[in-house]
Amino acid sequence: MAGQGALAAARAEFAEWLRGHRVFTLSSAEVRALHGGCLGPLVDSAFDRVDLEVPDGEAAKSLRQAERLWEEMASAGGTRDSRLISLGGGTVGDLGGFVASAFLRGIEYAQVPTTLLAQVDASIGGKTGVDLEAGKNLVGTLHHPRWVIADPMPLKTLPVRQVRAGLIEVVKIALACDCGLFEALERSSDRLDGGAPGPIAELVPRAIEVKIGVVEEDVEERGHRRLLNLGHTLGHALEAADGYRTLLHGEAVGWGLRFALQLALVRGLDDDVHRRALALLARFPVPPLPPLSIDTVLEFIGRDKKAREEGPVWVLPLEIGAAEIVSDLPADVVRHELERFFAAESEKS
Amino acid sequence: MAGQGALAAARAEFAEWLRGHRVFTLSSAEVRALHGGCLGPLVDSAFDRVDLEVPDGEAAKSLRQAERLWEEMASAGGTRDSRLISLGGGTVGDLGGFVASAFLRGIEYAQVPTTLLAQVDASIGGKTGVDLEAGKNLVGTLHHPRWVIADPMPLKTLPVRQVRAGLIEVVKIALACDCGLFEALERSSDRLDGGAPGPIAELVPRAIEVKIGVVEEDVEERGHRRLLNLGHTLGHALEAADGYRTLLHGEAVGWGLRFALQLALVRGLDDDVHRRALALLARFPVPPLPPLSIDTVLEFIGRDKKAREEGPVWVLPLEIGAAEIVSDLPADVVRHELERFFAAESEKS
Repeated sequence: MAGQGALAAARAEFAEWLRGHRVFTLSSAEVRALHGGCLGPLVDSAFDRVDLEVPDGEAAKSLRQAERLWEEMASAGGTRDSRLISLGGGTVGDLGGFVASAFLRGIEYAQVPTTLLAQVDASIGGKTGVDLEAGKNLVGTLHHPRWVIADPMPLKTLPVRQVRAGLIEVVKIALACDCGLFEALERSSDRLDGGAPGPIAELVPRAIEVKIGVVEEDVEERGHRRLLNLGHTLGHALEAADGYRTLLHGEAVGWGLRFALQLALVRGLDDDVHRRALALLARFPVPPLPPLSIDTVLEFIGRDKKAREEGPVWVLPLEIGAAEIVSDLPADVVRHELERFFAAESEKS
Repeated sequence: MAGQGALAAARAEFAEWLRGHRVFTLSSAEVRALHGGCLGPLVDSAFDRVDLEVPDGEAAKSLRQAERLWEEMASAGGTRDSRLISLGGGTVGDLGGFVASAFLRGIEYAQVPTTLLAQVDASIGGKTGVDLEAGKNLVGTLHHPRWVIADPMPLKTLPVRQVRAGLIEVVKIALACDCGLFEALERSSDRLDGGAPGPIAELVPRAIEVKIGVVEEDVEERGHRRLLNLGHTLGHALEAADGYRTLLHGEAVGWGLRFALQLALVRGLDDDVHRRALALLARFPVPPLPPLSIDTVLEFIGRDKKAREEGPVWVLPLEIGAAEIVSDLPADVVRHELERFFAAESEKS
């Protein structure tokens, strides 16, 4: 359920889902202080409510945290009929989904995403996960939430930088899969610039709808759904190589999208498409590229979860709203373009 | 694939499944020394083979072990197309299934069970799991192996006590679900007594067939499949209350079956069925009941994963090959029968 008033609209059905069950609510102290109030009326039909706390940020996504939560849930009398609600951004959602998927071989859960990024991306599709030393999201499951309640209300408290990073994921969805959404972004980009809530409240449900459509067609991520990895081959590598310090996920994807557009030019992408996509991305400024060597970036590209035996997989735009999956891009082409990309960006800054 | 020569018969298809893929083989040092040789010809089509080692026994089923294995798999270049083979008893199978289910959101795996218990029970049905401080198997997933290869050959090295404990699980399957299997057990019980391999090689494939039939009808364990928990309500509680020290799992289930038969008498079970079931169980002697207080046992019964909001669930025999699920047994009846049960057994010993 998405859009203005989604929390209120869901209330009656949500109450039925919880009636007579023990409910675990998972959140960070900060998010609970800001938005925890919205859960109150939603969960009062539950038999019992147990609040679970996790740290903010990527630190939450560890097996240590998952284990502690499972122990707490078991001690609090959690059973197979218990429910879990994740309230927060992408990390709380990923962790909550994983914890729900493996507690007593899986309990039902709901996602109540409070960041734009989580609303349009992480909360949809059932991907759950925690990080290893060896990399992000290497442990996880596919476990679909029974509910995703994306209400724009909590977004009002988000810093502009977070909103912009989330909008870059919306650009990604549009560029890869939906020309109409892309045009809607272009039309409202003036007003989106500072993270104004009005146009976002219109765009979020639409982006969610597009993503749900893609995911439902390809739950196992063997075909079409992989298009949503547009911008992520370089994006993930930048984040990891930089130790998750200077770029938000959406910002790293922003750089990944720019590079995917450059690679696509090599394969014959129309100049006009390239120009339009870059112009829209320019509406959502991101910090400079981290000062990394090309060798380091290439090494991290090779390590990515999505890199298969045959080497890295790239998603490259074909036109506005369409992309292709390319796994046979020669390594020397990638290296050459990456060198040009980093050189051009360092000149600008 | 089950029965004499199962390993050899599977070879060609199995080789196809592994061709070009990285394969992780998971086992304990002891099991690998005894039976690791049988994997050699099976896995030589793989692109690469990485051996992973776990401790013997329940200690293997921890999140610490799972995390270590995931880190090793990631460092060794594991990808979504990698395969995992669990070679060993129930604990290695449960851990291996869990590790496979959550590595990169799930990779395909095979079970090669080397104990009778694992062959007839743990390896079938896709249940995976690790233990928490709060109890056994509280974290896990449902992830079906692509292969279960149950060859009686490795059973030759099993101690008689392990074979007997495994046969008790076969009695459970027969008593709950299959009269024909029960009669076959009665007919060969003379020869089964010392764990003779001949009749076991005949009975194992039959028990596996019955279990597969039940599981396939009810993968989610919402109905019929729960009959396979016969003997487990008390069995799990005895194991846990005793700290997993004196009873093997199958032996604890043996005590659980005896008690379920006594409870069933209260609900009108035929005396003759009761007598026949006890007579068959008597062929597989188990150690005495641990010296536990009734209060302790009842507390652990309440903690069991299968105990739902409404209280403990019992599976009670109705006749040979049929059972029912009972969730409304009054607590005072259970307490009274448990007191009689412990008193009668302590008199005997």
